[in-house]
Amino acid sequence: MGKKIVIIGGVAAGPKSACRIKRLLPDAEVTIIDQDSLISYGGCGIPYYVSGDVSDEKELRNTSFHMTRDEAFFLNAKGVVARTNTRALAIDRKGKVVHVEEVHTGRKDTVPYDNLVLATGAKPNLLPIPGADLDGVYTISDLHKAIAIKERIAKGEVSNAVVIGGGAIGIEMAEAFTDLWGIKTTILEFMPQVMPRLVDWDFARMLETHLRESGVEVFTGEAASAIEGENGKVARVVTPKRTLAADIVVMAVGVRARSELAREAGLLVSAMGNIVVNDRLQTSDPAIYAAGDCIEVKNILTGKGGIAPMGSLANREGRIVGDNIAGIPTKYKGWIGSFTMKAFERCIAATGLSLDAALAEGFAAAAVTTAQSDRAHFFPTQAVIPLRLVFDLKSRKVLGCQGFGPMSDAVLARIDAAAAMISQGATIDDVSQLEMAYAPPFATALDALNATANVADNLAAGRLRSVSTRDFLAWMEDFGGHPEWVALDIRHPNETKAFVEKYGPEKWLSVPYIEIRNRHQELPRDKTMLIICDAGTRSSEVQIALDHFGLENNLVLGGGFNLIRRMGVAWWPN
Amino acid sequence: MGKKIVIIGGVAAGPKSACRIKRLLPDAEVTIIDQDSLISYGGCGIPYYVSGDVSDEKELRNTSFHMTRDEAFFLNAKGVVARTNTRALAIDRKGKVVHVEEVHTGRKDTVPYDNLVLATGAKPNLLPIPGADLDGVYTISDLHKAIAIKERIAKGEVSNAVVIGGGAIGIEMAEAFTDLWGIKTTILEFMPQVMPRLVDWDFARMLETHLRESGVEVFTGEAASAIEGENGKVARVVTPKRTLAADIVVMAVGVRARSELAREAGLLVSAMGNIVVNDRLQTSDPAIYAAGDCIEVKNILTGKGGIAPMGSLANREGRIVGDNIAGIPTKYKGWIGSFTMKAFERCIAATGLSLDAALAEGFAAAAVTTAQSDRAHFFPTQAVIPLRLVFDLKSRKVLGCQGFGPMSDAVLARIDAAAAMISQGATIDDVSQLEMAYAPPFATALDALNATANVADNLAAGRLRSVSTRDFLAWMEDFGGHPEWVALDIRHPNETKAFVEKYGPEKWLSVPYIEIRNRHQELPRDKTMLIICDAGTRSSEVQIALDHFGLENNLVLGGGFNLIRRMGVAWWPN
Repeated sequence: MGKKIVIIGGVAAGPKSACRIKRLLPDAEVTIIDQDSLISYGGCGIPYYVSGDVSDEKELRNTSFHMTRDEAFFLNAKGVVARTNTRALAIDRKGKVVHVEEVHTGRKDTVPYDNLVLATGAKPNLLPIPGADLDGVYTISDLHKAIAIKERIAKGEVSNAVVIGGGAIGIEMAEAFTDLWGIKTTILEFMPQVMPRLVDWDFARMLETHLRESGVEVFTGEAASAIEGENGKVARVVTPKRTLAADIVVMAVGVRARSELAREAGLLVSAMGNIVVNDRLQTSDPAIYAAGDCIEVKNILTGKGGIAPMGSLANREGRIVGDNIAGIPTKYKGWIGSFTMKAFERCIAATGLSLDAALAEGFAAAAVTTAQSDRAHFFPTQAVIPLRLVFDLKSRKVLGCQGFGPMSDAVLARIDAAAAMISQGATIDDVSQLEMAYAPPFATALDALNATANVADNLAAGRLRSVSTRDFLAWMEDFGGHPEWVALDIRHPNETKAFVEKYGPEKWLSVPYIEIRNRHQELPRDKTMLIICDAGTRSSEVQIALDHFGLENNLVLGGGFNLIRRMGVAWWPN
Repeated sequence: MGKKIVIIGGVAAGPKSACRIKRLLPDAEVTIIDQDSLISYGGCGIPYYVSGDVSDEKELRNTSFHMTRDEAFFLNAKGVVARTNTRALAIDRKGKVVHVEEVHTGRKDTVPYDNLVLATGAKPNLLPIPGADLDGVYTISDLHKAIAIKERIAKGEVSNAVVIGGGAIGIEMAEAFTDLWGIKTTILEFMPQVMPRLVDWDFARMLETHLRESGVEVFTGEAASAIEGENGKVARVVTPKRTLAADIVVMAVGVRARSELAREAGLLVSAMGNIVVNDRLQTSDPAIYAAGDCIEVKNILTGKGGIAPMGSLANREGRIVGDNIAGIPTKYKGWIGSFTMKAFERCIAATGLSLDAALAEGFAAAAVTTAQSDRAHFFPTQAVIPLRLVFDLKSRKVLGCQGFGPMSDAVLARIDAAAAMISQGATIDDVSQLEMAYAPPFATALDALNATANVADNLAAGRLRSVSTRDFLAWMEDFGGHPEWVALDIRHPNETKAFVEKYGPEKWLSVPYIEIRNRHQELPRDKTMLIICDAGTRSSEVQIALDHFGLENNLVLGGGFNLIRRMGVAWWPN
């Protein structure tokens, strides 16, 4: 027989590397060890199982051809032995064996290996607050938890839910609770916005607004300080500002690597607890590889290591481990941070670094935001998809892209294209010329992503001066806060009328785009004009025209009211 | 005043360069000259205007903010003079003037320039067959033609249509005729497949099948030899094989550059008639630039020049001309050939070179085809999207990608990502690792595009041997034609039953995927086994297992029956 390969962990990276090894080395004896009874499931599908979109948990463990990936499947279809209900206790690197224990019988055993793969995954963080151990407080860590949550709901025991953590898992779970089950759900996010670090705050705010429109309450900048129970069951979540009734609490506040086995075996583990690997995913012991949520992964853009707990990466990494064990020297380039998420009737997605993250990393970063159509404006299904491009002003390299739009693949198309450009080190000029596929039912002749790169080019060249959305909103929310500012609203008078009436013709100037060239004499020279249109495009043109007429005291509202409208502002005239 | 810029041609590249110049050089005097009364329209939207998706032709000339781009709009909004109904007669390069004539009055005039931009577009080819000049024979060259066609249909004069040419415009027009108006429509394509050169024949065949399912008759390898009329009006189209009734004929057989003005002015024009430009889109006269359908564009992949008549490219090129005239030395990288198209309920799209084109260009090209899900197989809206990746076996560079799927943006996302990778010179290894955005409602953990690159890697490494779809279909259509071949159908017995019954258990072996490892002894050693599943994935695994068992006489059907089913084969058991 061939090499003995032992894999600890049977969810994503583990089975992937097992199957790849077996395909490359059909002689190899491949064994997966997992303490759970259920393996090889699509963990990212848990919210859709809880919501009911997926009716049976087995579907999350099924192949596309409707076979369940259980022990028999791995043996018969893949030639891989899956030892479930078997806990790895320790690694004896010298003896090249893994000490294991059968969970139900307590029977101990050793499993010899030539190569070992650690795919031990991550475990969810638990907040150290009172009541975190009450019945009804869940983390989303495995299928059993998902089944338990769904059973609890199906029994009719849940009317109020609190989700602690406004990241992707928290929001997806909130949708699952609300959409099918009609549970009154609240998201608590400690940071000032949902999806912190993943998207910038204006994109987060569009998402928060849609969550609220869809019936989810969202409190940001607000932490859970305690969970209270009645008769051992969760009953309330307490924050510094309020007490929320809760029959169920989901804690989705990040994960950390499961690296105890690795650490105890003397393998190099980062300060954050991630298993350190080289670019062939080898640990500090050349016979031992690691992949998935438990490893330290290099971010291609920052060069820094960290945990990258994504099912998509786990699968890529598992394949690379398989290659290297089989003698194919495939290198892992690292990650850039691409994600997409459904939230009710919207999609939010991003790749690379947000502006906040890029600035924190020391890049000479800038960002532009557009709000253009996903397809020809005359095509019936057209929708606006706000896009943000983050880039480096010195190198002109693209650092990140964010998108928000309707529940279709329109945003995905732009983010995947941006991910490709970023992974290849492209500049904004490359994105400007990127030849995206065009036909009116799918795109605009100059795609929204190209147009966003063009705006970035204009900004980098000093041909665009913008007011930030944050400053504009601060002005509007405290109207008159910048007395030297006035709005120059260049939309159609039908659209500007209510604003002029509400804010007065001195502060809210209405001069249609088409009339600017003939009416610029009317405009004030002693005020900063904030030029407003729907998408920001006309405003940029008007800025150039005003500059030309010597009225240089003006700023463009990037993304225009298409963006502001999606943010849900209280001051919008009725 | 500033520079005098004259632009000949007012559809896409012309207005784009005019507006860009005016934004960069607000002092410039910019004049667009066009012989037509209607300018700056979305020509690619014509089929949707004819179909009725777009109710008024004005929508094709409108901005996204609902203003019509007419002479007044250009003057007031853009500061650009648009001289419509004005024909450019000749360019006096020495005197730097354009001689023009007003179409309706015959009044002649000269327009001086510092820089001239030729955006004269292309004109549709006319087949030199009898009857091509009959009333009712149209090309899709401008909005007037579109209006005339729609009026003719709206009057109830059209029951039968023949579209000559199975490229994108022909197919889009056929859909317009059939879908809303219920006109019996036939497409005639001279080449053996629709969309020749753009996609390979199996993707073309999936499209042809869907066109037929949608009520359009398609005849390939069949040319129109004559058009016959009655009382001067079109009545029939004659081919060597049949005569088709026709109240309207659309001739969509390609275009050629309008370059007479350039040639007569002594500018360099290619043998094919395209205006030759450098990478700053300057013609052989440095004062004269050119952009859009009339120019010779370099293909990035082949390095060869040719016509690239796409609205998307015209817009990019117009911007680059504007930059260069304004002193920004932007270079045009050339094109790769990205497109997408709606055909009833399907999307077909591609980027780069088809396998046929790549082989014809001398690449060591190979291709793999997959037929995987666009999103998690457990997500309700999941659909199969056949993808083909064309690549160079020596350099491993990706040369092209084709996709076919339902009418959503799922295929677009993969093609745009592939376009980005191709434009940046990526290899199949880069695509394998490309970090596409993942969540179950939008993608699979390992995206279909990544998976296709993995299959390409396996093929390149000699780990995959396939039977071509063409050979497989030939065998099936002349069953027994390769007596040494047998089918090894590894799908579920419920799926294989009808095939075994129809073709006999000797020629159609049914051994489920899961049982191969235990039943390989039953398999023949003296026959070539064509391994069949739905997507090709399981077949590849089975090939490795059979090889391992010494049964190396086997070939995988790439893309499996997911592909074959979409091709519409007559031999499919009922």
